[in-house]
Amino acid sequence: MDDQSTPRGRPAPLAPKADKDTVRRHNLSLVLRAVHDESALSRAGAAARTGLTRAAVSSLADQLIRGGFLTESGKSFSGQAGRPGTMLTPARTGPAGAGVEVNVDYVSVCVVDLAGTDRVRLTEHLDNRREPAAEVLERAARIAARAVESAAEQELDPVGVELALPGLVSQGSVRQAPNLGWNRVGAEDLFGAALGRLRPDSPALPVSSDNEANVAALAELWFGAPQERVDHFLYLTGEIGVGGALVVGGELLRGAHGFAGEIGHTVVDPQGPACRCGSQGCLEQYAGQLALLRAAGLDEDAGVPGVAELERRARAGEESALGALAEAGRTLGVVLSGAVNLFDPEAVVLGGIYRTLMPWLAPAADRELTRRTVSGLWPPGSGRLRASSLAGDAARGAAARVVRGVLADPLAYG
Amino acid sequence: MDDQSTPRGRPAPLAPKADKDTVRRHNLSLVLRAVHDESALSRAGAAARTGLTRAAVSSLADQLIRGGFLTESGKSFSGQAGRPGTMLTPARTGPAGAGVEVNVDYVSVCVVDLAGTDRVRLTEHLDNRREPAAEVLERAARIAARAVESAAEQELDPVGVELALPGLVSQGSVRQAPNLGWNRVGAEDLFGAALGRLRPDSPALPVSSDNEANVAALAELWFGAPQERVDHFLYLTGEIGVGGALVVGGELLRGAHGFAGEIGHTVVDPQGPACRCGSQGCLEQYAGQLALLRAAGLDEDAGVPGVAELERRARAGEESALGALAEAGRTLGVVLSGAVNLFDPEAVVLGGIYRTLMPWLAPAADRELTRRTVSGLWPPGSGRLRASSLAGDAARGAAARVVRGVLADPLAYG
Repeated sequence: MDDQSTPRGRPAPLAPKADKDTVRRHNLSLVLRAVHDESALSRAGAAARTGLTRAAVSSLADQLIRGGFLTESGKSFSGQAGRPGTMLTPARTGPAGAGVEVNVDYVSVCVVDLAGTDRVRLTEHLDNRREPAAEVLERAARIAARAVESAAEQELDPVGVELALPGLVSQGSVRQAPNLGWNRVGAEDLFGAALGRLRPDSPALPVSSDNEANVAALAELWFGAPQERVDHFLYLTGEIGVGGALVVGGELLRGAHGFAGEIGHTVVDPQGPACRCGSQGCLEQYAGQLALLRAAGLDEDAGVPGVAELERRARAGEESALGALAEAGRTLGVVLSGAVNLFDPEAVVLGGIYRTLMPWLAPAADRELTRRTVSGLWPPGSGRLRASSLAGDAARGAAARVVRGVLADPLAYG
Repeated sequence: MDDQSTPRGRPAPLAPKADKDTVRRHNLSLVLRAVHDESALSRAGAAARTGLTRAAVSSLADQLIRGGFLTESGKSFSGQAGRPGTMLTPARTGPAGAGVEVNVDYVSVCVVDLAGTDRVRLTEHLDNRREPAAEVLERAARIAARAVESAAEQELDPVGVELALPGLVSQGSVRQAPNLGWNRVGAEDLFGAALGRLRPDSPALPVSSDNEANVAALAELWFGAPQERVDHFLYLTGEIGVGGALVVGGELLRGAHGFAGEIGHTVVDPQGPACRCGSQGCLEQYAGQLALLRAAGLDEDAGVPGVAELERRARAGEESALGALAEAGRTLGVVLSGAVNLFDPEAVVLGGIYRTLMPWLAPAADRELTRRTVSGLWPPGSGRLRASSLAGDAARGAAARVVRGVLADPLAYG
């Protein structure tokens, strides 16, 4: 209420006192982001979208083309006078972002180009619980280095790496990742140093980090199907742990310490099985990957093939699989009803292993949500419980974060 | 990221094209809010705080004094050159706000002056479950009319009324208030019409409405002890129902439909007792006023005297009272740990009957929070579980909302 930008007594200039360079850098970003957001745009279109003059856009676009951020191609007809024009598109080579998801039983690396397209994907399934954090991160760096090599073959040059980690991440370090057994691990430093050793002749890549559910939720927001786009949602990802993120107005709700979203540790039964977080009876112990596989009579450590087998059995109508999934769905629904009553999202989006298991989880979960959400706000078949789109994954979200950095200030990467 | 007010190609003027009147109205509000926020301010102080010139402040202050919004009194020394000056303070008479909390077993009306001071309070304990909504609101209007009369005797003139209601409130109507048995009740219209009939010779007062926990949380934010002020918290109010509100960055988090905060319907036991919301085993059924009194062996309908008796017995160390409170505290702690893991607030503030019962609820609740909040973020004795201040109540918050309307545009009430 006190921050409105309405007139005051002593008007200040609109722009903070910015020198010409600052203004130009900002405008380069405006044009680049406009083209990125629209996928392709004529110079006239970019002028209309940014509010800059056509002359300014032309000069800025030329600089962005020279810098390797935009390409110009094809002919388009502006419609206005049938005058042909060329289209600006984000470069498919050059600056790119790398995202590295280090999860409990896999590492997945994704390289995304300036258009936001997933160009390289390298995933290794392995058990990250067996090694100390430093070795896990060193191995992740090796996988990342290989993905960066693949990217180089496509003439893509990652300008930074973001780590997506299944735990509480703050200021470059992991405060706790119970399912990895990590406590206070300086993940950015360890990963960055390992990557540096693997690429002694290349400049060091800046490394950032975030919680994996947070970046997966952003990927869903940025790359999900436009017709399903909501900007106020709860994102839940089923892995060995159960992660979560809250998005409000298109932004992550981070909480007072940056750790919001930890729905996996909601108590289902205060006397339930011990959880690696130190509590008992957490949602993870009922609806995480291990619990699901175990409940269906499969080896809890069967990993991806195990989840595929669970899906196969469910599809074949086998009772044990259907029962385990319905029970996990019911528990998910009970816990989600509390989160929905508290947070009132437009939708709940399920990712990770829940995405493919949706057909068997969703009916029971939706039933509990309908019964337990206040005031009939969750009518049956509302479609408010959704599978995440294929696009909604942590490595891509993390890579796209790096790309957004380039879009925000291309000259810093020129 | 796309909304930054950084320089663009074609600079627009700083201010939206506003005519002189609009600018002046805005600046009147700036000065009035500055004086309100500081309680008392010299003209020089108001100039420094608003960024307006001293000449402008003087002219605006004169207009606000003539309009009855400010008074000028006493002498102060500016310190700069020992030059004496007078102090501006918010008027203690004239425009005021009225808040009317209609809860399950009481109606409480509060009239707040422009300084934010609670000037009239009229509370009636009665059972609002026995009458239809229209009669409950008509009775609330009678209580409000009496409070407005008391205010008039103090030369206070409420310019609007805000209703605080224990349910899902949206666009002037109550979608659902389970503990009142209300469904789709046009509360503002019913109350406004009743108040109009009671005051046939007075201009109609504008009526607004909100959820009672929402406005109680705002009262806590605005009037709580400054040294305890946090702007990211979860507010919980224990009444016959258990209401809640989320505050992020000093603003209510409203959710996609405006119904966020309904923590009272978090499931404690999916097979637990039926709740009036239609679900089973909700927190209210374990830690609401009725459940607490019943568990302590008291008449669940004993109301305020019953809660006082519970407190007396707890103070006397009676086992049944201590046991009931510890058990409710434990359940509160389990549910709160889920909310804390999801939302990561700085503090959890307990209001309503929980405020006075804190000494017996808090130890068990805090223990569960410590055990179940991820990553040791809730160390024992952290002080993050707090009783709301006396000031944090719904009627006062609602009245203060009306006053904020005056502060935002005094001329609309001149």
